[in-house]
Amino acid sequence: MSLATIDVSQHILGKNEALAKELRDLYAKHGICVVNLLSGPGAGKTSTILATIEALKDSYHIAVIEGDIASDVDAQKVKEHGAQAVQINTGGLCHLEGAMIKRATEILDLNQTDLIIIENVGNLVCTVDFDLGESFKAMILSVPEGHDKPLKYPGIFQARNVILLNKIDTLPVFDFDTDAFYREIDDLNPNAQIFPISATKHDGMDAWITYLTQRIEEARSVALSE
Amino acid sequence: MSLATIDVSQHILGKNEALAKELRDLYAKHGICVVNLLSGPGAGKTSTILATIEALKDSYHIAVIEGDIASDVDAQKVKEHGAQAVQINTGGLCHLEGAMIKRATEILDLNQTDLIIIENVGNLVCTVDFDLGESFKAMILSVPEGHDKPLKYPGIFQARNVILLNKIDTLPVFDFDTDAFYREIDDLNPNAQIFPISATKHDGMDAWITYLTQRIEEARSVALSE
Repeated sequence: MSLATIDVSQHILGKNEALAKELRDLYAKHGICVVNLLSGPGAGKTSTILATIEALKDSYHIAVIEGDIASDVDAQKVKEHGAQAVQINTGGLCHLEGAMIKRATEILDLNQTDLIIIENVGNLVCTVDFDLGESFKAMILSVPEGHDKPLKYPGIFQARNVILLNKIDTLPVFDFDTDAFYREIDDLNPNAQIFPISATKHDGMDAWITYLTQRIEEARSVALSE
Repeated sequence: MSLATIDVSQHILGKNEALAKELRDLYAKHGICVVNLLSGPGAGKTSTILATIEALKDSYHIAVIEGDIASDVDAQKVKEHGAQAVQINTGGLCHLEGAMIKRATEILDLNQTDLIIIENVGNLVCTVDFDLGESFKAMILSVPEGHDKPLKYPGIFQARNVILLNKIDTLPVFDFDTDAFYREIDDLNPNAQIFPISATKHDGMDAWITYLTQRIEEARSVALSE
């Protein structure tokens, strides 16, 4: 890439960081936990969000910010499951940025929100660099994608402390070496927490939901103590 | 994105187009068919390439240009299957560009090459805009990713005339609506040819191999007639 591009990228990233800080302060003030959910296309972000809403909707007010290149099918599904939903169409852009999240957040009723899940664009590369003011990033890898993905897309696995290994019900069908996957993650990111789940079959969701509940309560208690 | 970024992108794309033209002329002169293979992460680009080499290696000289963010595991596999392989590591960049392909092509013996397969970075968004001088682009969608992907990533499906639907052996395991997928493709791109395959199980490869053989022969005959 030419030097000019890198300069522009740095400028955009710098501006994004300022916006992310502003968003993080706003969320903290309202005691809201925000999850930035990343994965490649078709790894199961939407089904994981729907299963998470199902598990938590009686205890917390949940909102979802849906990032897509095009279409609003996911936002429709989220609304049908009883959560607030805001759709962002990036019009071809491969990731979400702070400015988009700021506009989406202005539409939400923050006094009636405990948890915001941001469904990022399906992309294992471009989404990594953009802070969206989230409490934490979680990434989903699905069994059919293969155990070698940490080796091939190390950036996103290094950056994430929460990894959901989805579609574990299909382990008997695929040549997925679970030991090799855990070993690779341990090399790249020894602090990572891995939650094996099947979002559509509602398997293994308890550990993830317990973890997420802790993070929601943490965000609440910080707001109360201020 | 700021206006500055768009200007820089246009500049990069323009420069890329000139390089792509140069590469296309070079390949035509040597009668080489070049496939630019696109998909999201884990859809089966490498296994499709290996199955294709297996089917064609006794008839043609094959080279593979492997694009990855990091690692050279795929290039190693290709070499073990008896094809020439050149590895490109993009160092974080989400797509391949003409300049990288030019450098990789300089390493190949073009007089001993009938087919070049370029394995692009696993990304359904950023790879679409960059012409690499290929004869044609082919994209792979895998059954586990879901039938709704054309709706969510229309750009890549509109741009491709050859679509490989991979991992069809797992159709019984996933909630993949084949009719909806074909309908969606027909709406976006009525000229698209769809090849349902299972690269690891070697199912449905015949139609794809017949098509690719025609394209290789076309490229050869153009070079001979010049």
